[in-house]
Amino acid sequence: MLTDLYPSRVSEKASIMKRKDPVVYSNPTQPAGPLSQGELDSYEQNGYLLFKNLFSPDEVQTMKQELGLVLEDNKETDSKAVIHEPGSNEVRSVFDVHRDGNFFEQLSTNERLVNIAQQLLGSQTYITQSRINFKPGFKGKEFYWHSDFETWHVEDGMPNMRAVSCSIVLTDNYEYNGPLMLIPGSHNWFVSCAGKTPEGHFEQSLKQQELGVPDNASMEWLVDQAGRIDRATGPAGSVLFFECNIMHGSSGNISPYPRSNVFFVYNSIENQLANPFSGLSPRPEFLGNRENIKPIIPTNDPIVPRTVSHS
Amino acid sequence: MLTDLYPSRVSEKASIMKRKDPVVYSNPTQPAGPLSQGELDSYEQNGYLLFKNLFSPDEVQTMKQELGLVLEDNKETDSKAVIHEPGSNEVRSVFDVHRDGNFFEQLSTNERLVNIAQQLLGSQTYITQSRINFKPGFKGKEFYWHSDFETWHVEDGMPNMRAVSCSIVLTDNYEYNGPLMLIPGSHNWFVSCAGKTPEGHFEQSLKQQELGVPDNASMEWLVDQAGRIDRATGPAGSVLFFECNIMHGSSGNISPYPRSNVFFVYNSIENQLANPFSGLSPRPEFLGNRENIKPIIPTNDPIVPRTVSHS
Repeated sequence: MLTDLYPSRVSEKASIMKRKDPVVYSNPTQPAGPLSQGELDSYEQNGYLLFKNLFSPDEVQTMKQELGLVLEDNKETDSKAVIHEPGSNEVRSVFDVHRDGNFFEQLSTNERLVNIAQQLLGSQTYITQSRINFKPGFKGKEFYWHSDFETWHVEDGMPNMRAVSCSIVLTDNYEYNGPLMLIPGSHNWFVSCAGKTPEGHFEQSLKQQELGVPDNASMEWLVDQAGRIDRATGPAGSVLFFECNIMHGSSGNISPYPRSNVFFVYNSIENQLANPFSGLSPRPEFLGNRENIKPIIPTNDPIVPRTVSHS
Repeated sequence: MLTDLYPSRVSEKASIMKRKDPVVYSNPTQPAGPLSQGELDSYEQNGYLLFKNLFSPDEVQTMKQELGLVLEDNKETDSKAVIHEPGSNEVRSVFDVHRDGNFFEQLSTNERLVNIAQQLLGSQTYITQSRINFKPGFKGKEFYWHSDFETWHVEDGMPNMRAVSCSIVLTDNYEYNGPLMLIPGSHNWFVSCAGKTPEGHFEQSLKQQELGVPDNASMEWLVDQAGRIDRATGPAGSVLFFECNIMHGSSGNISPYPRSNVFFVYNSIENQLANPFSGLSPRPEFLGNRENIKPIIPTNDPIVPRTVSHS
């Protein structure tokens, strides 16, 4: 039985504790990575890195087309890994695309991404969750502040903070179309969320908040520490790497500009999912991979459409 | 019977038409105003003006205290002009503060505000609506795109586009705490909103959208024309003047930073409210003033607390 380094949802009171894991993992046996010391220091301090040109405009265009095709292909599916717009067959998200045996699987092993993930995590990596998203303009939903790690730890049994999320943004992100917001430095603190299921009273359980939601006092403290809230704005093709425990969220998007992105979570091969620390059953495989885990071998194949022509 | 220059909610189809009124009204008999030709041109083109230092930090501090006192004073009232937080006696907005016989009435006549309004509207002015707002952090609501004039015309009978809203922001407005967003140039177009109450079918009426909501095609066109969406960010004490027909809205605010502001709508004394163009009864007096309308005489009294001490 693993020790629970980061207990959460175990009490009706929230609390905040210092991170117990490194942010940048060093590994002397690992070949030198693409990140400079300045970039590593920035990641250590802020908890994220934003690259504006890891992929060329042509490559981004190809990714965008492929994303459209996957959404189109999945209109009729009833797979749980495909999220439809309520009341229509429009597809908004498809999970587990790094196992599609096709374009996105290939992309997930691209050395421009994997080498960065390996350098940050100090080991070989695998993907624990992946997703492509299309969010239309005008009615983009808000996502409240959260640490991904909190969920992955409690619900999926991720033992340590040793994973990094990678978001390839395929549309221009402006200040005004609901960009991802990050609280720099918040990855150095773990907010243990309130949420012990209250015993007994029916009314109390009705009032219970959604689980995994950080409390206001912790959020105020984290923002005070940071002195600011950063936004991941940038042109299509920007790639954001963000630490699994950084506090992030986004406002709704009432602008006409849609947003789409590809999302891969690289986890250290030494940090595979155990039993959920909640004591409950693990979530489905598409939300946290456990089966046939193998370290990714980085590739450098050209990023080209999966078929010769889509005409 | 006045001609309806801007019909809206008269059809199930939305449409867009050119503005029929001037933006900046000139009046040779009016004394020269405080705005430069450059500022007038900017207002003409963009539909708003943002001033970062119309009031000193001390004056802003006084306004903030007065706002807090008014909210506190109104905890127990059941006046319709006071908006409480659902399920609590916390006050979020108080309307009609320009008639409080006290601090905010005095502020509404301040020459630094009134002279600008007079210059833009080319006449003497009066206040058709006023409000103070306090919005807490973490759960600030989104406001979807709208033209205030559309509502004031249809529901309140405002004949022409000859009014300007003035918002004195009492808290710092950042990109990330839900600042007002404006579509520059959109004041030059009138979006006639769909919304004719469908006759007959019950199900149809259930599906009917909220009234006065611009359609997506018009919104896309306006943003395309503008090439951008502007945000009214700035330090506490910034004052925003925005044209009554400019398309504006705001995202929700999940940041810990609350927002508060004082809001006065100056209308030309020559543009007083007539019968609502909807044909229905006018909204309540606190939403659109009709009684005892007199032109404002600008004042230059010092901005000081309403009582000597609040200790």
